Amino acid sequence: MASTPTCNLRIPGPTPLPPRVRQAMAEQMISHRGADFEALYREVVQGLAPIYGTRGDVLLLTASGTGGLEASVVNTLSPGQKALVVTIGVFGDRVAEIAAAYGVPVTRLSFPLGQAAEPEAVREALRRDPELDVVLVTHNETSTGVTNDIAAIAAAVRSARDPAPLLVVDAVSSLGAIEMRMDEWGCDMVVTASQKACMTPPGLAMIGVGPRAWPWIERAKLPRFYFDLLAARKYAGRANTPYTPAVSALYGLRAGLELMREEGLEAIYARHRRLAAKTRAGLQALGLRLLPDPAHASDTVTAAYVPEGCDGEALVERLAREHGLFVGEGQGKLKGKILRVAHMGCVDDRDIEEALVALERALAR
Amino acid sequence: MASTPTCNLRIPGPTPLPPRVRQAMAEQMISHRGADFEALYREVVQGLAPIYGTRGDVLLLTASGTGGLEASVVNTLSPGQKALVVTIGVFGDRVAEIAAAYGVPVTRLSFPLGQAAEPEAVREALRRDPELDVVLVTHNETSTGVTNDIAAIAAAVRSARDPAPLLVVDAVSSLGAIEMRMDEWGCDMVVTASQKACMTPPGLAMIGVGPRAWPWIERAKLPRFYFDLLAARKYAGRANTPYTPAVSALYGLRAGLELMREEGLEAIYARHRRLAAKTRAGLQALGLRLLPDPAHASDTVTAAYVPEGCDGEALVERLAREHGLFVGEGQGKLKGKILRVAHMGCVDDRDIEEALVALERALAR
Repeated sequence: MASTPTCNLRIPGPTPLPPRVRQAMAEQMISHRGADFEALYREVVQGLAPIYGTRGDVLLLTASGTGGLEASVVNTLSPGQKALVVTIGVFGDRVAEIAAAYGVPVTRLSFPLGQAAEPEAVREALRRDPELDVVLVTHNETSTGVTNDIAAIAAAVRSARDPAPLLVVDAVSSLGAIEMRMDEWGCDMVVTASQKACMTPPGLAMIGVGPRAWPWIERAKLPRFYFDLLAARKYAGRANTPYTPAVSALYGLRAGLELMREEGLEAIYARHRRLAAKTRAGLQALGLRLLPDPAHASDTVTAAYVPEGCDGEALVERLAREHGLFVGEGQGKLKGKILRVAHMGCVDDRDIEEALVALERALAR
Repeated sequence: MASTPTCNLRIPGPTPLPPRVRQAMAEQMISHRGADFEALYREVVQGLAPIYGTRGDVLLLTASGTGGLEASVVNTLSPGQKALVVTIGVFGDRVAEIAAAYGVPVTRLSFPLGQAAEPEAVREALRRDPELDVVLVTHNETSTGVTNDIAAIAAAVRSARDPAPLLVVDAVSSLGAIEMRMDEWGCDMVVTASQKACMTPPGLAMIGVGPRAWPWIERAKLPRFYFDLLAARKYAGRANTPYTPAVSALYGLRAGLELMREEGLEAIYARHRRLAAKTRAGLQALGLRLLPDPAHASDTVTAAYVPEGCDGEALVERLAREHGLFVGEGQGKLKGKILRVAHMGCVDDRDIEEALVALERALAR
């Protein structure tokens, strides 16, 4: 495993680990109730705050991204309370499914696959139904490679009524690679996970919680224990977590955040933009048609239709087996129809070039 | 951190990592939907089965032990359905709190701190109230260092009525160090976590699910999504998990299980028994009074009262700061009154001797 070249893991998470993160993952355990852990916790949270663009709380949960999304649902809603879920693909739908599993009547505002959400449609949906008090929206839809304009959506939510509904953002496959200004834009809760742009193994969900969100959380009546953010806030006050945290993932995340600080956020965003453009150009040069609306194509993952008559699942499998290149396949309705090439986290030009070469060879057969 | 001597981490989890586990934690990411991951998943599950003593399912959740306990609650109960929680300390109480958070009317059968649960009392409680259809009990109570006789409790549950209630066991701080014969004894669901006897960092909860448990799980109406074991079972069928798993923790767990296979389960249990006896003798030689009923003292963690007039929290803090020895402090009602020395996982005679020397020096002041 240790000999697997990092450059060939082009799925949209887990993303490749830089050497420094791998080294950090090997550190010895410490007491999760001791001073060393508290220092680790503080470094991680302080490293995350500028990436969120928040002066609010950033809480850590030992779970994958879906656990973080569930936390955002069960901490903001109550039985019978309506929620607006803005969905542009599989992961938006997943949020709606979580809410439905908890008995929350969900209004789905869906857009065609490959399209971004229209802010004006969000505002209209909120104006149509004054009972919609919480809005859940995806920042970057991993299944289609489309990025929503969260700044504009947040403005639409704010202008829909006064006081504005709560805005919860799934930024799992964007935060740290695509700009997020949580406080400035007016996002109240922003969820992400360790295994994406932060270049850390999966196992941690991180939730930014703005000051406007806490009254919702205090009122929320959906049942919760492990994911209760009130318990998380209580422990966060002493740089700790209510239940034994994934200590190694925090080691890894600290190292990943250190690398991100060294590169600088603007440089990271520019690199992702550049590699996304390179990937799109390369896939088109290979004759593939891109899925996303060009105005909203993602900087972290590019989805393209496989050629007519080609079995997408077989192609993805052959890329892995014969070329050692791991890309994402289509999910849901797009199963077998597309492939998804990630350019997220620890990735550079050569990685993209190698992926395109492997794909060219596989398609030539 | 890497220079921290492993031998001085004597808290009851996270436990020290053997070098081979640390090395495994540093492995590069792989696709969690690819063949390499499926092989990893299979090795982990096959390594766990003999430790559980089960031919049933063993499911993996990315969460800490409390998440696993929550999964055992939400997958077996329905709103309004009664549950019997047998508690002998903080972690038994926690299961009752989880059930209560989900609106389940809990009957608590509590025993004094330091005592084990009486199987006959469990049977009587079940006979008194025929609506008690699920029993939740702790195998090893970490907060008091007491081990319940699960074989006898399981027999009591079985004999209470026909068909017998479902038996759910919290084996977080026992499985892999204290014998568990899940199938033979008649335990229907057994929860553990990676950071205890399996010598792996925290981040994974493991749940053994016997064939008798599935009808309960299929009937259970408590809301759940991330912790839904029906989804976990579906993915387990193809050696996978519904949501991105903590891949590195699986690497670590595979290495930990390999070490356990090499040592042999009987040898591991004998080592834990020997080190527990050595710890108890050593603490008594230092003049400390042991908390647990001697007939039920735990093989993984020993709790002892601090000397009269001594502040337990200050002692634990001084042991860490001045002697580099990390032990557990009292929790709940025992806060400040006891210390807890773990002998769980990667631990040998010298580790216990060093802990006793450090404690002797700290007490001499």
